[in-house]
Order: sequence, then structure tokens, then C-alpha cells
Amino acid sequence: MKLDFPRYTERFGAINLGSVQRVYELDSGKSEEYHKTHQTIRKICDEELSEIFGKLAIIIPIKSEKLKLLEGVLSGVPHDCLVIIVSNSPRHPVDRFKIECDTLKQFAHFVDRDAIIVHQKDPGLALALQELDYKTVLEGKVVRDGKAEGMIVGMLIAKMMGKEYVGFIDADNYIPGAVNEYARIFASGILMSSSPYSMVRISWIYKPKVSQDGLYFAKWGRISEFTNKYLNAMISHYIGFETEIIKTGNSGEHAMSMKLAELLTYSSGFSIEPYEIVNIIEEFGGVFPSKYPEIIDKGIDILQIETRNPHFHEDKGAQHLKEMLRDSLFCIFSSNLCTPNIRQQILKDLKTNGILTGRKQPKQLNVIKPFKEVNIAEFSNIVGKRSSTLGFYGSGLNRQMQTLTGVV
Amino acid sequence: MKLDFPRYTERFGAINLGSVQRVYELDSGKSEEYHKTHQTIRKICDEELSEIFGKLAIIIPIKSEKLKLLEGVLSGVPHDCLVIIVSNSPRHPVDRFKIECDTLKQFAHFVDRDAIIVHQKDPGLALALQELDYKTVLEGKVVRDGKAEGMIVGMLIAKMMGKEYVGFIDADNYIPGAVNEYARIFASGILMSSSPYSMVRISWIYKPKVSQDGLYFAKWGRISEFTNKYLNAMISHYIGFETEIIKTGNSGEHAMSMKLAELLTYSSGFSIEPYEIVNIIEEFGGVFPSKYPEIIDKGIDILQIETRNPHFHEDKGAQHLKEMLRDSLFCIFSSNLCTPNIRQQILKDLKTNGILTGRKQPKQLNVIKPFKEVNIAEFSNIVGKRSSTLGFYGSGLNRQMQTLTGVV
Repeated sequence: MKLDFPRYTERFGAINLGSVQRVYELDSGKSEEYHKTHQTIRKICDEELSEIFGKLAIIIPIKSEKLKLLEGVLSGVPHDCLVIIVSNSPRHPVDRFKIECDTLKQFAHFVDRDAIIVHQKDPGLALALQELDYKTVLEGKVVRDGKAEGMIVGMLIAKMMGKEYVGFIDADNYIPGAVNEYARIFASGILMSSSPYSMVRISWIYKPKVSQDGLYFAKWGRISEFTNKYLNAMISHYIGFETEIIKTGNSGEHAMSMKLAELLTYSSGFSIEPYEIVNIIEEFGGVFPSKYPEIIDKGIDILQIETRNPHFHEDKGAQHLKEMLRDSLFCIFSSNLCTPNIRQQILKDLKTNGILTGRKQPKQLNVIKPFKEVNIAEFSNIVGKRSSTLGFYGSGLNRQMQTLTGVV
Repeated sequence: MKLDFPRYTERFGAINLGSVQRVYELDSGKSEEYHKTHQTIRKICDEELSEIFGKLAIIIPIKSEKLKLLEGVLSGVPHDCLVIIVSNSPRHPVDRFKIECDTLKQFAHFVDRDAIIVHQKDPGLALALQELDYKTVLEGKVVRDGKAEGMIVGMLIAKMMGKEYVGFIDADNYIPGAVNEYARIFASGILMSSSPYSMVRISWIYKPKVSQDGLYFAKWGRISEFTNKYLNAMISHYIGFETEIIKTGNSGEHAMSMKLAELLTYSSGFSIEPYEIVNIIEEFGGVFPSKYPEIIDKGIDILQIETRNPHFHEDKGAQHLKEMLRDSLFCIFSSNLCTPNIRQQILKDLKTNGILTGRKQPKQLNVIKPFKEVNIAEFSNIVGKRSSTLGFYGSGLNRQMQTLTGVV
């Protein structure tokens, strides 16, 4: 990989918000000479990437996405990353989850790679969380529906496997080469951060739109424009200089160090990605006193890196976009950081887009508390014994899971 | 990379035609264990790929393709490959070639990579070929129009730069990650061949079609079906067993060892890709006596490897497809290997598709003789002194070109 250093950085309390970094080469070769001569572009060697991949879990939330796409995504994830699939696909009338397991098993068998799959509605999983007093993602005897909830399950499993970093990649991507680039960007960003508390967010170079005239390479998604605008308005308000630094408010493809991930409060549903930024600002922006003064010293790095590959993915339709817009703007609206002025503008946009009608106010934000306090050894133990859906593939993983869960 | 060994091979004289090989992983990690346990899947390490990249020139023929696409393609080519752009873009009223040079220069400057660009109509280039008695690609005082002619120019420059392998990638590809995969496939195929005379042809997993209903992931291009059918019919006739081995008759993305490339006779225009197969069969299939008995001993390997990435590229319209179909089938029709029965079927298909009308017969095939005999030291010398368009970028290349061409 060869990519920019951030050209400028907005500093907000303990947070370093980097400007979007451009990728120049996907594969930057083995020559060592480059390091010395360039001061604004960083070359990342294969060995450096490989070292991070070994510590990185790629979490793939899936809900009835086409298996052909899942297969493609799997082929793009670097071999040394641990794949964790969290499925919320229906099990009746056709057991989609079983088909997903078969697909993963076949793939893992052919390439001998480490991979884990679990169903979000596994009662054993919910039981473990119940017993460890982490009920924030539960609804009755199972984990709630929702992408955020699936991501939390994935992160708990990554932590149980001893991974130091987590990255998220959606299962509906058409381009295996783009998936491969995401993982390389995650690792590059992690390497470029100087703090143990880091986040890497993907900015897409283009999001092509399919129409009868062919393809149009749009620069921005329809939702991102709104989300970025309000996140930037909020940041501008506090730092006192207008900024357009945030370009990745809705980036589903992003990565974090486990140290940062386990501290964050998450929001339910589709607002998880923008809310990560909101929550980081709430916790570490210095506007409110922080619960973690020791972290304030180290700083939090948020890197935004633009892909070379365009983002070709399944079109989920207008209803999904409306829900995303609603959830994304609600989570900004609900923050204590949000000013009355910005709240008014958000309400106006929601009304203009037919999402809020009349005098209705946005509903309460559903938040998920940090998972740092979950006793992860106990979690392994209970999940290992009681889960009915956890599958793990790969020769190394088999042994590791036996040790972790105590189940042979 | 992790990919199949060919599951079966058709042997035709000295030629080994491998069945399509599947790619399982784009990045197969650093663990060494895999080598020992798998007998049907080959793992190719980064170091192995990197070694081939250093000997591989990627030739990109370009004719007014969008510069955004060229930039994307460049970012996907591995750094250690030498990029050679052969442009046949118009120079009036806007000098497109100059813009291409600027784009390449800017890119090469940022990433410090080796790259060469030349215009197909450079009079100095034609002069060199004239003086060295290689008039087969000339028309008057310049190189003829045509993709094949551009490819020959690229191969001559690759040979002058001492490269051992050449690979071709079209400039109209939307997906940098796919370009990166092509290069990795080229190198993998070269590594898997046991002969110094090797060819690697790309088979696309899907060629998506854009329509108003969205994307449809078609398996085959419209022309390939015809080309493959007739190439297979011809091969079946001689080996006496029906075969469908050829799946890459029109593969623009392919690579060869220089040792093989310099021996082949090429056909002009759009039939160059299928004619490579036709000519290899003519020379080495054992039906006619070979001019190269020493090569018959070593064998010729043709590998066909299927990408993980779909092939998203510019739609060139119906007229272009008709020309491609015509040229592709003409070159099979014209071969001495073609049987009267296959000729009749080809004529029928050409008529059905509105390409031949009435009693007209296909025109004579325009062939380009092998470039093995071109004195490459003299070629460097003349081109270095007389070319008005040759540009070379990258710190290493600068020195090498001075030595080669004697021009400081």
C-alpha cells in the first residue's frame, strides 16, 4: 500500500480527526528505497500488513445477503485475518443460516483458513450475556435484531479470540478486490496511528449508480451528505472554526482497536456508524468531563482513508435509505452536544424528506453500553458449552477454541 | 494467492491446454504450513509474486479511454511491474496523448514507479522498425492503427527493457482491485508453468451487464461464446475427443513469457487474442511440421485462470462487438487448421449476425510476423535518438534508459 499521511488534522479535545487520505498503490512493491525519499506519502510493506492481519478480526454481519456475494467477500479477506460472521438470517421456512454455515465450511476447508460463524438469535449466546449482566443487547431470551447488536456479538467473539483489532465489512459487496483493499486500508491506518485508541473509516472514491443510461460514478451516498453535514456542524460549533473534516459519517466499513471499541457506547440499528463519532466526541472531546482521564493523555486517532476501488454493492431500496437517514440524524439530534440550532435544522430536513410528520419529535435513542466489563473468560466458557450455532473452522482455531471454552 | 492446479489438461502436440483454474484467496497469508497439506490447491507467497513482478512488463494499450479509468488501472498494477502505455489517442484538436503523459508523469512522481509511455504514431518508432526491416506493422511512415500493432510496440519496448514476461491489461477497467488481481494471476500462472514457453489467460467470473433493472452478472461475454465454440471445435477435430477446454478465446487480459511472445505470428486488429491460440496450435500442435523443433521438446503451457473480481468495463457499443465477432471468427476461418465443416458453420453464424451478406467471403487475414529477429540493441539505439514521444518516469528507469539508448 502507498497512501497519504493526513494532510491536516482537526484536534478536538483528545481526538485527532485526520483529513481524508488517498491511496496511490494497492501493492507498493518490495523496494526499501522509497521510505527515505518521501515525506508526505507512506509506503506500507507486505510484512507490516501481514503482522496486523494476524491481530485483526474481520466481522461480517449478514442477513439473507446472496451467498455468491458472501463467497466473494470471503475470498477478498486476507488469509491471516480471523473471519467472524454474525448472521441474523431467517431459519424458517428455509434454514438460510445452515446454508451460510455450509458455504463458510466449504470455503474454509479449501483454503484452510480460520473462520467463525454464529447466529445472532442463538439462545446460548443470550444466556451468557444474561449471566454476565450484559443485558443491554438482549430482548427477552435472545439478542435483539439490529446490525449494531450483531456487530457487538462479533466484537465479543473477537475479544474472546484475543484479537487486538476489529474491522467491519458488509456482506453485500460485489468486488472481492475492494474487500481486500478495505482490509489493507484498515491495517495501514492502524499502523499509521500513534495511539493505542484508533479508528479507521473508509471513504469511497465513488459509489456507482446503475441506471438505464449505464453507470454514473457518484462521489457521495445519499445519506452521507446529510450525516457528514451535521457532524461537521456540531464539530465546527465547538472548535470555533468551520470544518468539513468528516467525510465518513455512515461508513459501514471501518475498523477499531479493541482498546477503543470496548470503551464506546453504541447506538442500536443503522445509526451505529455515525454514533461512534458522536460518542467519541462526547467521551473524549473535552466538552464534558471524561470517565477515562488516562486515555485523554494518549489521544484518540480517527483516520479516514479513501479507497481506489468504487463501492459496488446491493441496492437496498428507498425504504432502507429512509430508515438510515432517520437513524443517522436521530443519533446526532439526541446527543447532549447537539445545539438547538442544529436540532432545528435536522427536524427540518427530516420533515422535508417525509420522515417526520406534523409535530412529532424523534423517539428516544436506544443505546448499548460498553462491553469492557464483560468477563470474557466466563463468556467463552458459557458460549462454548451452551451455544447451539457457534461454528469454527480452520485447523489452528479448533485447538484454540477447545482451550478457550473447555469443550472437547 | 491461492488457486487450483489445473484439474485436467488437453494435450495437443507440444501444447498443454489447462482447464480453468479457480482463485480462492487474493491474499493467502504468510503461514508456510499450507504447502505441505494441499495437493490440489497452490499457495503463492508474496515473495514469489514479487520476484515475477520484477521481470514483468504490464502493457496498457490506450485509445481515448477516460483518464480517471487509466489512473485507477495504474493504481492497481503492482509497483514492481514495469508499466508500458502504448497510446493511439488523437493529438488534434486536443492533444489527448499529452494529457495521458501528464497523468502518468503525475502518478509516477507521487509513487516513484517505473513507467514508459509512447505514441503508436511516433515517426521515430516507425523509422527504427523500417531500418531494422520489421515492416510488418508499418503503413507508410508510421505504425498502423490497431490494438495488435500497439501491443507489438509494447512488447518490443518490454524486450528492450530486458523484461522476461509481458502482460496486457485494458485501460477501460473500472476496478483497480481487479487490475491488481490480473497481475497476481499472471505471476501465479507463470510460477505454475513448468515450461519457459508459457501463456496465462484470464477468464472472468462474471461480466456484469448494466440495465434499467440493475446489474445482471452474466457469465460470458457475447463474443466469447462464438470464439470459444469454434476454437474448441477445431481442437476437438484434431485430438479426436470432443472438448470444451478453451474458455478464454477473447481474453484481452493475458500474459506470456517473452520467449513465447517473440516467436508468435500475430493477427491485426481485434482478432489478436483468439489468433494467439490459433497460431500456437499451427506452430506447435504437431499437425504441420514445426519451425522450432527445440521448443517442441520443452512444451508450451497455456493456463486459464478465473478471476474472483467481476469484469466491469466500459461498454463500447454494438458496432465494436460486431467488429470483434467478425475479426475473431475470420482468424479461425483463415487458419489452415480449420476444416470445411467448421468454415461453413462460421459463415452461417456471420450471416445470421448480419456481418456477411450475400455470397461475400471473409477478407484475407492481415498477419504480423514474429519480432524475434528484430535487433533489439539497435532498436533501443534508434528509438532513443529519434523518438519524439517516448517518455519514461521513475528514478531507476532514467539511468537504465540512458545506458540503453546512449542518449543523456
